[in-house]
Amino acid sequence: MKILVANLGSTSFKYRLFDLGDPGEPMLARGAVDRIGGPSSKVVYASSKGKTEADRAVPDHGEAVRLCLEQLTNPATGVIGSASEVSAIGFKAVHAKGISGVQRVDARLLSAMEAFNDVTPAHNPPYVRAMRMLAERFPEMPLVAAFETGFHATIPDRNRRYAVPNEWATEHGVLRWGFHGASHRFIAERTALLLNRPDLRLISCHLGGSSSLCAIRDGKSVATSMGMSPQSGLLQNNRVGDFDPFALPAVMRATGMRFEEALAILANRSGLLGICGKNDLRDVEAAAETGEADAQLALDMYVSSIRHYLGAYLVELGDTDAIVFTAGIGENSPRIRSMVCRDLERLGILLNDELNEAGHGERKISAADSKVEVWVMPTNEEIIVARQARDLLSARS
Amino acid sequence: MKILVANLGSTSFKYRLFDLGDPGEPMLARGAVDRIGGPSSKVVYASSKGKTEADRAVPDHGEAVRLCLEQLTNPATGVIGSASEVSAIGFKAVHAKGISGVQRVDARLLSAMEAFNDVTPAHNPPYVRAMRMLAERFPEMPLVAAFETGFHATIPDRNRRYAVPNEWATEHGVLRWGFHGASHRFIAERTALLLNRPDLRLISCHLGGSSSLCAIRDGKSVATSMGMSPQSGLLQNNRVGDFDPFALPAVMRATGMRFEEALAILANRSGLLGICGKNDLRDVEAAAETGEADAQLALDMYVSSIRHYLGAYLVELGDTDAIVFTAGIGENSPRIRSMVCRDLERLGILLNDELNEAGHGERKISAADSKVEVWVMPTNEEIIVARQARDLLSARS
Repeated sequence: MKILVANLGSTSFKYRLFDLGDPGEPMLARGAVDRIGGPSSKVVYASSKGKTEADRAVPDHGEAVRLCLEQLTNPATGVIGSASEVSAIGFKAVHAKGISGVQRVDARLLSAMEAFNDVTPAHNPPYVRAMRMLAERFPEMPLVAAFETGFHATIPDRNRRYAVPNEWATEHGVLRWGFHGASHRFIAERTALLLNRPDLRLISCHLGGSSSLCAIRDGKSVATSMGMSPQSGLLQNNRVGDFDPFALPAVMRATGMRFEEALAILANRSGLLGICGKNDLRDVEAAAETGEADAQLALDMYVSSIRHYLGAYLVELGDTDAIVFTAGIGENSPRIRSMVCRDLERLGILLNDELNEAGHGERKISAADSKVEVWVMPTNEEIIVARQARDLLSARS
Repeated sequence: MKILVANLGSTSFKYRLFDLGDPGEPMLARGAVDRIGGPSSKVVYASSKGKTEADRAVPDHGEAVRLCLEQLTNPATGVIGSASEVSAIGFKAVHAKGISGVQRVDARLLSAMEAFNDVTPAHNPPYVRAMRMLAERFPEMPLVAAFETGFHATIPDRNRRYAVPNEWATEHGVLRWGFHGASHRFIAERTALLLNRPDLRLISCHLGGSSSLCAIRDGKSVATSMGMSPQSGLLQNNRVGDFDPFALPAVMRATGMRFEEALAILANRSGLLGICGKNDLRDVEAAAETGEADAQLALDMYVSSIRHYLGAYLVELGDTDAIVFTAGIGENSPRIRSMVCRDLERLGILLNDELNEAGHGERKISAADSKVEVWVMPTNEEIIVARQARDLLSARS
């Protein structure tokens, strides 16, 4: 079964095609279109048969998918004979009111996503727009949404509930939903495979464009740092992370700002950006190295927020077997990994500095006598979405 | 120097009189007035010379303080010759915009407290009302406010700042201020004395009518669970604890509630009360024992929130010497202490169940082979306020 996994941005479209009938689950092809809606987009494609790259106007996500299918079936570099070989397009969807897990995309699902537009303002609106267009344009193609919240359905109520009146949870969906589910699920499965144990207790640290930690026991999420919205938990590129809503009246009164305006600042102009004016951690690290105090503060706050949840999850799990760093920053910043693990020998965590700094790719980076194994592990959210889409279609047929 | 320490509630007044000239710093007398403003108040008083108890109408806090001074100078059971022997009245004040530490009460200070009325809606309005009345009624008596935020001024910026635009911190005071400063300071000083080491790393767990944890290094606060407001951190009796403000639009849209109404629910109808309808932990424990599921959930959520911060602070400190339980619940609930410390041997924390359950008063309750010492320690916020008032007056004179 061939599944196309789509990663939608407000003006971008990336995809990977997997062959899940093959036991090796190979990725057959991948591609991307940027600047959708602009005068000229870069359209790239790569498979084992070759690569192509072109510049052309791509007015919308429908056209981007049409181009994608054209490339996949191209006689020279394509990997399938016809578009009908694609069993489904899978999406890593973020949040919907009353819906989680893996679902066929239909009008009810799109409405449920729209109902949480202001809970996930950066994510849901562009996703809903693009998915609705694709559903209209390719009515024959099954569209499957794998929600990032799905992996966290196993979080026990004591960690999932906020201490609000019960009806806020039962009627309005106010819960610690958690996100990055595909990534944390991949890390859980991969680590169990590598350590050859299904009964692992591990802490998955997904540190990237957005970041979250997840405590995993026996393959199941038991706590995660993002809550009702992806604006909570660790501070993010431009999103605030954990914040006390009772600070808002003081700011609103002093500035004349409305509640919605204050939330927009917390969602778009906070996080690393709010502290030091830079929202890419690589830029923050570089500026901190030149002695920029705000950048150093942003870096220290980011690390403090990671250590906060790392500690919380050491206690949650009681006896942690492994800590795994993944995603853009987790995989590529030895400095962040080193800062996160500093002075934790007494808690059983000790890095091997050489392996942390010099190695690359999937590897153990803890010292031989560290009680907790520390790993770097590239994540693969797309294969998780592809498998979930396959499982949903198989269960239905 | 004799200092009267006042504990103001919206309809109550409790006090203790200390003699700080005496090296033993003895408490000379204590008393309380309840149901102020109602038809009949219970007025109690106790000193080494005797106790009195009476029922009478006490219309306001001014009259309560007048009665207090009358009792303290009573020829039979009083402990001072005249009210002028009282050098100051000290208050454990909560929060003020742009002001912390220990301060003389004046118009500027009262305005600064009023400016944060909606940040600390349960605390500031009754305090400001009562302090203003006492300032008018006893113009000769120095009034000193020792802010609960003062002990936390040493928290480093990486833990003190929220990831919001800088001007929210610098202009609007949006910081993790922290509270329960007098209690955490007492625990820091007392533990250093008992363990005979000034360089301790310890976690103070103030669990009571309201609760917070504090990480303390070398006697200084380096992190605490309450942030901008005392509604954040652990869940409280009827206050929410940590909460994601991006949940509010979903609730407000569904219910038609305004922002202020939603905040009022988070400040008054949430916490233990929101989850199970009971806001006294003793009632929650009793109901959980009879199998009430909501009460068990409230208990589990409370413990989870304590363990969350306990873990965060184990990592913050790296190498923790002691964990101290204090305040109403911390001192008196072996069950909560046992639940908080469960399954943490690998992190160096192991209770001696007998000492935890059977003992009482100030004592170590950890097992002999626990790397981290665990203590129960009655707190004494009033002596801290008295000393701070004395130090302020001494520095001025």
